Amino acid sequence: MNPTIEEMQQHCSIRKFADRELETGTLKQLLLAGQAAATSSFIQATTVIQVTDLEIRSRMVDISGNQKYVRSAAEFLVFCADLQRIRHRVKALGLEAEFDWTEQFITATIDVALFAQNTVIAAESLGLGCCYIGGIRNQPEDVCQLLGLPDLVYPVFGLCIGYPAQSPGKKPRLPLPAIVHQNSYQALGDTDQSIDHYDQDVSKYYDERTAGKRKTGWSEQMMQQAERQTRSFMLNFLHKRGLLRR
Amino acid sequence: MNPTIEEMQQHCSIRKFADRELETGTLKQLLLAGQAAATSSFIQATTVIQVTDLEIRSRMVDISGNQKYVRSAAEFLVFCADLQRIRHRVKALGLEAEFDWTEQFITATIDVALFAQNTVIAAESLGLGCCYIGGIRNQPEDVCQLLGLPDLVYPVFGLCIGYPAQSPGKKPRLPLPAIVHQNSYQALGDTDQSIDHYDQDVSKYYDERTAGKRKTGWSEQMMQQAERQTRSFMLNFLHKRGLLRR
Repeated sequence: MNPTIEEMQQHCSIRKFADRELETGTLKQLLLAGQAAATSSFIQATTVIQVTDLEIRSRMVDISGNQKYVRSAAEFLVFCADLQRIRHRVKALGLEAEFDWTEQFITATIDVALFAQNTVIAAESLGLGCCYIGGIRNQPEDVCQLLGLPDLVYPVFGLCIGYPAQSPGKKPRLPLPAIVHQNSYQALGDTDQSIDHYDQDVSKYYDERTAGKRKTGWSEQMMQQAERQTRSFMLNFLHKRGLLRR
Repeated sequence: MNPTIEEMQQHCSIRKFADRELETGTLKQLLLAGQAAATSSFIQATTVIQVTDLEIRSRMVDISGNQKYVRSAAEFLVFCADLQRIRHRVKALGLEAEFDWTEQFITATIDVALFAQNTVIAAESLGLGCCYIGGIRNQPEDVCQLLGLPDLVYPVFGLCIGYPAQSPGKKPRLPLPAIVHQNSYQALGDTDQSIDHYDQDVSKYYDERTAGKRKTGWSEQMMQQAERQTRSFMLNFLHKRGLLRR
């Protein structure tokens, strides 16, 4: 194991940041690392909005369910899947193409995630901490309006970056044998026992971190989420953006 | 800049591999690094199928448009977005929940991409090379059948990993200022000039690498792709899998 892998295996999201800016040039390095990630069919569909305006940051705090570090982090980036840039360039070459296919939506979304994850690994390698903010999808139309995003562009997630002011423990993950199968998908019943144990590990993890206030296992958390039907407006929102129509 | 970032910035896809296995324990390290990536709302929706069966590999070569390294790479992994595991666990707790919402599809797909990108960075840090194989989505139903994937699981992409037997040049990326905007989405017209220059860079890159046989700029490539309407069956396929229905 080398330091890169060791660092990655120790990853945890940072939700409390020191009052300290990034050094000059650092953000550019991180974004160049992000950009160097693979891109599906070379589409390069990522657009990053760096939010420095504190009023916009405050609105993002509200939108994302009062995640205050969206305002306090040294950097807050909104990662967007962008098919409008391609449409614009293709139109200049004389082709009025459609970009509302599901395949295009998938590749653009993957592009964004690969770019962002490189940015995160690069940041962590410099001792910075990060937190993805999926919560900006709570009110995606408001985010589009705040950032002036045109059609065929949607905000996938936000990302806080800054110097950590906490060191939370590593959150346990599903047992590897339950999620890595050989040649054929393993029957789900075969993984039950190991995931039962895992549920107990997660429960213990929360118990210790919340002084007994919370003890939810993983499966129970998934049940609570499934009951909530979070962001059930998403398809309608994306259709309005001109995406995922067919 | 540190070695991790330098390495990431030098990334290129490897499509020719040495006839050499990974050392014992390496793949596990890579997958643990992958698993340590952030996961949206803790859903951990990634399932990885390690394909060691050479007949299945050969079928994957055909499916992915004759990409022969899918067979010759030391490892070939199929990364799947998996909502079936969660459904199964939640059902055992007594809840018959639906997992056909678009939001769930997005978070599961992002989860897979973050996991896979960590795996790639970990692999590259050990001197290994990787190539994503989006081409398995050419015939996703066949992939599902070959790997016995149940409903609510779809193959997002494959990944070849092995020791590189080539060192292709770094492919130029869009100019950073054209894709990183401050506080508000930049008018597309403002980026035209820099992307015109970029098109020339890409054209030169291909010209040099193909001894003049190909000189397509980025915008022109995007136009050719838009004309092809690749994988227009995707929505229909996903609906059949029980995904993305509303």
